[in-house]
Amino acid sequence: MDAAVEPFKARRIYLLLRDRISSGVLAAGERLPGEPDLAATHGVSRVTIRRALDQLVAEKMLERRPGVGTFVCATAPLGSTVLNFSDVFSHLKEMGRCTEVRLLSFGYAVPAAPVAAALGLAPGEKAQRAVRVRMIGDAPFSYLTTHVPERVGQTYSEADLARQPLLALLERSGVVIGRARQSISATLAGPDVAGLLQLEMGAPLLSLTRVVEDEAGGAVEHLHALYRPDRFTFEMQLQRTGAQGERRWSPLPPPAAAEAATTGENAKPVRPLRDKRNSP
Amino acid sequence: MDAAVEPFKARRIYLLLRDRISSGVLAAGERLPGEPDLAATHGVSRVTIRRALDQLVAEKMLERRPGVGTFVCATAPLGSTVLNFSDVFSHLKEMGRCTEVRLLSFGYAVPAAPVAAALGLAPGEKAQRAVRVRMIGDAPFSYLTTHVPERVGQTYSEADLARQPLLALLERSGVVIGRARQSISATLAGPDVAGLLQLEMGAPLLSLTRVVEDEAGGAVEHLHALYRPDRFTFEMQLQRTGAQGERRWSPLPPPAAAEAATTGENAKPVRPLRDKRNSP
Repeated sequence: MDAAVEPFKARRIYLLLRDRISSGVLAAGERLPGEPDLAATHGVSRVTIRRALDQLVAEKMLERRPGVGTFVCATAPLGSTVLNFSDVFSHLKEMGRCTEVRLLSFGYAVPAAPVAAALGLAPGEKAQRAVRVRMIGDAPFSYLTTHVPERVGQTYSEADLARQPLLALLERSGVVIGRARQSISATLAGPDVAGLLQLEMGAPLLSLTRVVEDEAGGAVEHLHALYRPDRFTFEMQLQRTGAQGERRWSPLPPPAAAEAATTGENAKPVRPLRDKRNSP
Repeated sequence: MDAAVEPFKARRIYLLLRDRISSGVLAAGERLPGEPDLAATHGVSRVTIRRALDQLVAEKMLERRPGVGTFVCATAPLGSTVLNFSDVFSHLKEMGRCTEVRLLSFGYAVPAAPVAAALGLAPGEKAQRAVRVRMIGDAPFSYLTTHVPERVGQTYSEADLARQPLLALLERSGVVIGRARQSISATLAGPDVAGLLQLEMGAPLLSLTRVVEDEAGGAVEHLHALYRPDRFTFEMQLQRTGAQGERRWSPLPPPAAAEAATTGENAKPVRPLRDKRNSP
């Protein structure tokens, strides 16, 4: 009976320590108390403590130095592959490294009801559906599912989409892109996505849903994106607007267009926000 | 031994079904196969299936109708309390209901290293630290930790912060707010935050880190916010800018200032994005 309960306790300790590390309460370089102390503090067995620590070591949040102890890692996990959304939204720049995309599936199917509604499809109407994983080198950071109305989808092939960004293909088809609306949320990695993004099942993911419209207001793309938060965050600068007492912020204009590149998709590899202040 | 492994399997089934429900692959109103069928399909025991379904029922993603079966809930969980970030950022509007804040702690302490670095504090320098939970009625949706340099913090009291938004208090102190930069990510609910936000431990959370600067570029506030994604999402409208082939979006200007209200903090209770298309 107790054996069945222990994984829950280990998860509790894991989440507790994870919080303390990511908030900086346990500082980088700090040595953790020994396993017996941690077990006594939290009222659990040493086995439970070890299981929680194992997971944090696997995630590079902790580091074991044999004969010395367990330490909070001095650098952000995967710091060099962290990606940021540079300016307010989707202004893409390359910062020395390229992202690469793997097209996992390409076909036509009747989408799930929320996607069909967003695209304004008739009941039973098919859409062009593609699933892609975007990588930096060998490190996957996003899992992208797109749906495009069939009449637009038929203007490009699987080979086209394997090579070119979807937005460029939409424009090639004659679509004039108008507005988009998007929603950013958070979710957990299910078993399939976890495998593709090289994560533990149940890991946190940033999620984005974007509906792109043409000039007439017709939906031409539905994007659902899942991002590894250790490799991709949305970052933006804001300026204060409005009268005193009104809490309003407006986005700052994006950096000079000269910096814009035409590769990648809404992502640029840069140092994480918390590293910027320490950079030379 | 097997007893210890089952919770992992149940979590796997839970995450799998959760994905299918939230993506619409399992449609609202749809009846799930019976527990023996699900157990056979996934190669697990009925006890494991029941455990996964129990959690989805508790989260109002599934509904059991005795003698009939288990159904995908027809409405979004907690639909009526879902909150959106209406326009690009922090333009606040009231939509009929007010948010309320509970001040959980107020004091002065040396912050963790990343916060101290963001605020430009000297080693050992204290900051005014406050923890608040924001609610809609009885439903908590955000957990906010703020740090303010001591010299600014001393211009307001605990009672002030319990009643007024922090940004208003900063401006009352004579600070002229300049820019802010923020980063949006995702994380998991640790045991403490889970309790306060009335969530299961390990549930996904949206996280936001914002550093607010005064006109001279000095940091005057560090905000770390955690949001329940079922009750709060970031939403924005974008317009296409730049040449064809450049994938660039710019935010649309916020709605008329007349709609702005001076209560709440960066949140408005509205219907979720997916409901908007169906609203009259």
